[in-house]
Amino acid sequence: MYRLKKLIDRIIDRVNINLREPAFDVAPYVRHLIAPEQFAKFYAFYGLTPHHPLHFVFTHSCLAGSYFLGRCTVDHSVLYKSDLRGDELKREGDIFYYQGIQIPLHNDEVIAVRDSYLIKTLVHNYSHDPENPEEFEIRNTVAMHYANIHGAPVEGCFIGPLTTVDLTTVHDCVIGAFSYVQVGELSHSHVEPGTVWIRSDGAFEFVFRFPENVLRRYVWVEAGHTPTGELMDFVESRKKEFQSVFDSVTCCSDIPVPPGASVSRYAVVKGTSTIGENVLVAQRAYLMNAWMGPGSNAQENCYIVDAHLEGFNVTAHGGKVIGARLGRKVFVGFNAFVRGTPEAALLVGEDSIVMPHTIIDLEEAVEIPPRTIVWGYIRNAGDLAQNSLAMDDLVHHDGPLTKGAMTFRGNGSAFVRAFQHRIEHILEENGAYFDGIRHMGHAQKGQNIVFNIIQPYPEGDMKGMYPSIDIRP
Amino acid sequence: MYRLKKLIDRIIDRVNINLREPAFDVAPYVRHLIAPEQFAKFYAFYGLTPHHPLHFVFTHSCLAGSYFLGRCTVDHSVLYKSDLRGDELKREGDIFYYQGIQIPLHNDEVIAVRDSYLIKTLVHNYSHDPENPEEFEIRNTVAMHYANIHGAPVEGCFIGPLTTVDLTTVHDCVIGAFSYVQVGELSHSHVEPGTVWIRSDGAFEFVFRFPENVLRRYVWVEAGHTPTGELMDFVESRKKEFQSVFDSVTCCSDIPVPPGASVSRYAVVKGTSTIGENVLVAQRAYLMNAWMGPGSNAQENCYIVDAHLEGFNVTAHGGKVIGARLGRKVFVGFNAFVRGTPEAALLVGEDSIVMPHTIIDLEEAVEIPPRTIVWGYIRNAGDLAQNSLAMDDLVHHDGPLTKGAMTFRGNGSAFVRAFQHRIEHILEENGAYFDGIRHMGHAQKGQNIVFNIIQPYPEGDMKGMYPSIDIRP
Repeated sequence: MYRLKKLIDRIIDRVNINLREPAFDVAPYVRHLIAPEQFAKFYAFYGLTPHHPLHFVFTHSCLAGSYFLGRCTVDHSVLYKSDLRGDELKREGDIFYYQGIQIPLHNDEVIAVRDSYLIKTLVHNYSHDPENPEEFEIRNTVAMHYANIHGAPVEGCFIGPLTTVDLTTVHDCVIGAFSYVQVGELSHSHVEPGTVWIRSDGAFEFVFRFPENVLRRYVWVEAGHTPTGELMDFVESRKKEFQSVFDSVTCCSDIPVPPGASVSRYAVVKGTSTIGENVLVAQRAYLMNAWMGPGSNAQENCYIVDAHLEGFNVTAHGGKVIGARLGRKVFVGFNAFVRGTPEAALLVGEDSIVMPHTIIDLEEAVEIPPRTIVWGYIRNAGDLAQNSLAMDDLVHHDGPLTKGAMTFRGNGSAFVRAFQHRIEHILEENGAYFDGIRHMGHAQKGQNIVFNIIQPYPEGDMKGMYPSIDIRP
Repeated sequence: MYRLKKLIDRIIDRVNINLREPAFDVAPYVRHLIAPEQFAKFYAFYGLTPHHPLHFVFTHSCLAGSYFLGRCTVDHSVLYKSDLRGDELKREGDIFYYQGIQIPLHNDEVIAVRDSYLIKTLVHNYSHDPENPEEFEIRNTVAMHYANIHGAPVEGCFIGPLTTVDLTTVHDCVIGAFSYVQVGELSHSHVEPGTVWIRSDGAFEFVFRFPENVLRRYVWVEAGHTPTGELMDFVESRKKEFQSVFDSVTCCSDIPVPPGASVSRYAVVKGTSTIGENVLVAQRAYLMNAWMGPGSNAQENCYIVDAHLEGFNVTAHGGKVIGARLGRKVFVGFNAFVRGTPEAALLVGEDSIVMPHTIIDLEEAVEIPPRTIVWGYIRNAGDLAQNSLAMDDLVHHDGPLTKGAMTFRGNGSAFVRAFQHRIEHILEENGAYFDGIRHMGHAQKGQNIVFNIIQPYPEGDMKGMYPSIDIRP
């Protein structure tokens, strides 16, 4: 495995060069994180449909267990059980609008990963960087477990576990564990762990930071160690259940899937789960006793357990909903953890927004009213009062606002509209509004997807490395 | 499936142009032979090891259910459940000897299939054509079920079901069903069905032709129909048992495999089968209650059922051994069918040679003495007397010789030596003589092979067609 070891060393050096000011050494976080044998153990795979532009190029890389859809190039990188989903990339001829400038695209956009090491990372959507609209670039970057790189070109970054960079161009930054940044552009910054930071220049800014004791309980990382905490344990304890779906070439689940809906054959579906019309269940989603109302979705790395989703519910990448009843159009953001129990029931009223990286882990029954925005850490009704706002109040707010550990400034209406607009966009893209003819989305376009399996060299110096592969129509 | 239909039409036209003198129309044999849905139903796959030069190029083709190992290019072709095994191709720097001329190879050899339609065909070994030593070419050719194209570049040919072209350069020929030709070079010929024809210029010529009634019973093809007969039925009736091995990504059988041996995970192994040291069981081989003595092999499309193979037995591609006990170093040639029953036991003595395309289908017990060469159609002791020669007699023969429907001319010793030399070569190549360090062959080099799965477009105009794929180290 000499070549793979050299590749990891090279990536570490490249990331460290980018992170030299202020100095940060990624080596202890990743050098011995994955046991070498693991890299040769899991196949990589890519989806093929007539609905997605096709061009995959993989060179000098390890792709262990990773998944690709849409145009992707991977060069001199290690992708470990990562998902690169390029099915919302821009197309040749599309117009990219930015501050009044219309940029016509002269090529289909491509996700281009170079000199990077992504671990169980989800890369999705299209680059919001107007400077390079045809390429969604990830370069000289290390991302740890269950990170989301969402429409966010990153260069020279260390992205912690369960961390999300969303619609943000990120240069030479360290983004701490469980942080969520959606701030447009970021350069040479160290974002503290557990920071939820949403900023739209000239419109609004939302900041919340989890206290250290909560992070230590739910997600924590120290140099030289695998990430720890309940969120990691939750996922790790269910890992084995994915084994059988990856061991089979054909589909495993016999759950009825109505017209317009799709359940990935790389999802786990157990118990008495129900799939409604136009539902999308993505690969690496996990459903157990899940009632998925019409138009709902469970994206990559989502867990829906003992839960009822009324319909048109978005559960964003990495979102987890356990023991809860969610009204219509409830949105659960990236990596949010939402858990009720039979003794501490959780009801979430319709149209409510559970912000990305929210932890709701109940010790008593809580009912979140309809049209509520919630964030932070909520264990009981008191926490809810401190970590929520009624949407209808916020839309009338303009100016600074502090509530608990959250600070907001700017225009509340713009903030709420931005969320609502995005939720509608996600529902449309996922095919929630498909009427049998119009409004086709991922749920429909993914129905007849076929999967292709690629493997690394099984032994010798090249063990764990993949051959160079070029696939086009 | 518009594109696939056009491709098949184009191939038919190209083959027919080659076969215009004398006129032969391949269209009715193949145009509607495979139901269109079948082409999109089975994945193709290729093997990856550090022991084989790697370069696969697939363009504008359908590869349904086909397997590739070693350097292969496929262009504008339909390969349906075919096996292209390039693991004995010549290497760059090798010297190719021909009539005293030494040709150094300036490239690794590649199997190059163009404008051809191969159905369940095995392509193996390296091209014996001295005119083009770096390319094993198959062009403008249709080959039907279980054909073997073995070291034989073919251009403009129709090759019938269960037919073998072996070490023969074939231009613009029709080779009838169940024929075996090993004649060096052949041009603008129609070889009648059931012809077994082995010729070495200036040394010997062996010719046998099966009578029509035997062919009708065992293998028969008419334009517009799937091939029929007991050999086809035998294989078709076991087809479903391969389903589970193709449905699983990981290995299925839990039979013990000793050091030095390998059993393809795409083989079916059932009953109380035993695998000896250095045994090779190739993909699409079928073992049931098979005792595979040390150094034995079961190549692609072989069936070993209720049989005991003492050791160092070669069962060539498509060979079938049922209810028989074979002594040490018994050779069973391409597509030979060798069947005893509990009531009509078959014993084959050591060092005997069952020639390619021999049918032994017993109605009474038969014992073939050691060092016997057998051919033709054998049901009882009387048939054996008519269709066999003692090797030790043949080596002393020189000149013409007729026995039953077989005619021989030339040097018996050269004929026997050619077979013996080849059997030794096959045993060596397959790793039968591996001592733990030296004499590594396919059995050892294939132990850690990994398989990669490629799929066609699942719907639309391109349904059944594969993307263009280029894979290199």
